[in-house]
Amino acid sequence: LAKAVYGLPEIHRDAIKGATLVANPGCYPEAALLALAPAVREGLVADDVIVDAKSGISGAGRGGLATSVMDHFAEANENVVAYGLDGHGHGLEIAQELAELRKADGAKVTFVPHRIPMTRGILATCYAPLRDEGVTKRAVWEMYREHYDGEPFVRVTDTPPQTKQTIGSNFCLVYPTVDERAGRLIVVSCLDNLVKGAAGQAVQNMNVMFGLREEEGLEQLALYP
Amino acid sequence: LAKAVYGLPEIHRDAIKGATLVANPGCYPEAALLALAPAVREGLVADDVIVDAKSGISGAGRGGLATSVMDHFAEANENVVAYGLDGHGHGLEIAQELAELRKADGAKVTFVPHRIPMTRGILATCYAPLRDEGVTKRAVWEMYREHYDGEPFVRVTDTPPQTKQTIGSNFCLVYPTVDERAGRLIVVSCLDNLVKGAAGQAVQNMNVMFGLREEEGLEQLALYP
Amino acid sequence: LAKAVYGLPEIHRDAIKGATLVANPGCYPEAALLALAPAVREGLVADDVIVDAKSGISGAGRGGLATSVMDHFAEANENVVAYGLDGHGHGLEIAQELAELRKADGAKVTFVPHRIPMTRGILATCYAPLRDEGVTKRAVWEMYREHYDGEPFVRVTDTPPQTKQTIGSNFCLVYPTVDERAGRLIVVSCLDNLVKGAAGQAVQNMNVMFGLREEEGLEQLALYP
Amino acid sequence: LAKAVYGLPEIHRDAIKGATLVANPGCYPEAALLALAPAVREGLVADDVIVDAKSGISGAGRGGLATSVMDHFAEANENVVAYGLDGHGHGLEIAQELAELRKADGAKVTFVPHRIPMTRGILATCYAPLRDEGVTKRAVWEMYREHYDGEPFVRVTDTPPQTKQTIGSNFCLVYPTVDERAGRLIVVSCLDNLVKGAAGQAVQNMNVMFGLREEEGLEQLALYP
Repeated sequence: LAKAVYGLPEIHRDAIKGATLVANPGCYPEAALLALAPAVREGLVADDVIVDAKSGISGAGRGGLATSVMDHFAEANENVVAYGLDGHGHGLEIAQELAELRKADGAKVTFVPHRIPMTRGILATCYAPLRDEGVTKRAVWEMYREHYDGEPFVRVTDTPPQTKQTIGSNFCLVYPTVDERAGRLIVVSCLDNLVKGAAGQAVQNMNVMFGLREEEGLEQLALYP
Repeated sequence: LAKAVYGLPEIHRDAIKGATLVANPGCYPEAALLALAPAVREGLVADDVIVDAKSGISGAGRGGLATSVMDHFAEANENVVAYGLDGHGHGLEIAQELAELRKADGAKVTFVPHRIPMTRGILATCYAPLRDEGVTKRAVWEMYREHYDGEPFVRVTDTPPQTKQTIGSNFCLVYPTVDERAGRLIVVSCLDNLVKGAAGQAVQNMNVMFGLREEEGLEQLALYP
Repeated sequence: LAKAVYGLPEIHRDAIKGATLVANPGCYPEAALLALAPAVREGLVADDVIVDAKSGISGAGRGGLATSVMDHFAEANENVVAYGLDGHGHGLEIAQELAELRKADGAKVTFVPHRIPMTRGILATCYAPLRDEGVTKRAVWEMYREHYDGEPFVRVTDTPPQTKQTIGSNFCLVYPTVDERAGRLIVVSCLDNLVKGAAGQAVQNMNVMFGLREEEGLEQLALYP
Repeated sequence: LAKAVYGLPEIHRDAIKGATLVANPGCYPEAALLALAPAVREGLVADDVIVDAKSGISGAGRGGLATSVMDHFAEANENVVAYGLDGHGHGLEIAQELAELRKADGAKVTFVPHRIPMTRGILATCYAPLRDEGVTKRAVWEMYREHYDGEPFVRVTDTPPQTKQTIGSNFCLVYPTVDERAGRLIVVSCLDNLVKGAAGQAVQNMNVMFGLREEEGLEQLALYP
């Protein structure tokens, strides 16, 4: 376990290149970390982060012990519920990676996942106080755009992204903005939990490990609508 | 306008009794204020509140100018999106009422609504830093239970509530808890945006104004599943 | 078993009144029989009937052995499938009751149920060849209207009915029409499988058995939308 | 118009090869004709056909005049309704092609489309009386298998197909069976109305017209779940 590299190429690409063991991230941490990494790395925000995430039902897995009565169509449809309020492993995973990005411990990270009535897709809405309340939406957006310039699978969008724009693709869409009255950064990100949040991410990691073109096998566009 | 009373009996029942003009609240503020009122009135939290709300599509109204291509089934289904990120009127409505509860101005209130693929229902997940980080989940839960004791249409629940548990009824379900590591209050609330969030609330106000039994015409149970 | 009366008051009200044992019908037969009874009893159609039914997922029951992986939200959502093609018990139930209505055996009855991605509701589309191809839509519609005149829970509609118009109520909506080129009667009927198709029907039968007002406890309107 | 070839390669491949004008079929006729062509061409059934079709909402198109209040999420969700009961253009399209296959006029064709709450997908359940009631399920299934042997985009399945198995792909799945008691052929077929039922079909026709490999650009697998 000590040798495993955290398999998020947008943060750890160089380490993945030389790795013999790569740990594929959870779907929620993927969405949250791609939303927050630029701001945290640049010290734009204080160490006090809330991730409010919304996931389709396939996030819970298909069968066996993971399947509960809550996955039954009649329960899950026309319904939304928060869960993991007493702690969810993905919250720790987010906190650990954010600490590494800041080179510091002790961030307050609150992570609350929600089940919403759709099959695929995760949308994370992330909130953190700005260190400098004078920073503008435009400046934040440009910083994000620059940060992800050249990334094959991250797009910084002009308008709030929709999960449906990513379904079937390996893209993560990221939209940063500022609540000027509250002095707060808000970043919305989304991805397909079964592609960029799972198998697609694994293929991307494999491509990086083996020196293949990073997009190999991952160029499928989203299926819309 | 100056004479209008804000029509949330759980906060302003006495004023509504004597009112000649009552303003029915928006559906989002209803859910947020019923989640936050006990904590704000008691000074449990600092003036720094985030409301992350998830609404079914009927919240956007049925027709005319309010209907956009986003309401089309093929766009709205299997999709989730944040909106109002540049400011939504309901954010101001929440901030104004919270200020009145605290008898103080200047709260930081961030409100982000999301459209999720269901017909009815709103779930609000509210976050605020605890003034006293040592307060326990149990103490908060008991404070809420006591606060809403005797209220005909608010239930403080033992587990995170589901919108489906309120569909067709005039109930608002409220679940307060504490993220101990982050020192944060989290309150999840939900209601049917077309009943407690709209017409049912109006009937409840009318009952209070006219001295009728407050539950009159509102005793329909939720339709589950 | 020999003493049990088939619990569909619209056909067997008198027998139910004196019964000590009433068998509550299946949800599919309810919809099909209320659609076909007037035409079959009057000899309007030949003994060659097709019932193509569409049901929400709650029709399969909630748990235990009845729940299959097909009930998982991720499988059932955005999906439609026919089942029971090698024979479904409800097909026999329909055939038996139609035979009784005609006072004759040997009807050809084909019944094909489908699962569609919604929680509640059944819609049955029924097809049968007209004995007299010259009969008009208008005449059929008026015959149905007269047949169900006075029935508390059946409405003959002016336009094709929608399951959503019945959700939560004990109503069955019936719309008869004629395909003039093919000389075929088409009747569309719908109901809430958990009310008129199950518990509501049982209450209605109980009311009839005990001489109570037939609508007692069943006056809930549909929850729309 | 007189020069246009009906663009269903599984029936008219040779004519499409030499055509200068190809009319892309409607989505409903595609599903119905691929279900019925083998049986009709071989004279397996009498000229008396019922097509009961179920379509997702994207079948109605995205905007402009084609969009009605019925396409609003709150109306379409958790709802099913039959439409076109007074005649739908696709019924004539089906009848015309079936007549051509039989080299005879006068088939009775009843076509009833239904809107069901999903974005994509069409499932057609087709019924026709067998000329020889003694024919077995197995024999029919083998005849269909042989008929479509070598077709790149039609699969005869072992079990009733699900629309979700075709979403995003150019495949049409066909499942023929026999209701032995009623002496009736039943064929269930499904496809993605936006691919095999529209743009994918157009590409397939173009490939045939231009002598390209018929699968060119159409090898995308279904997105499941």
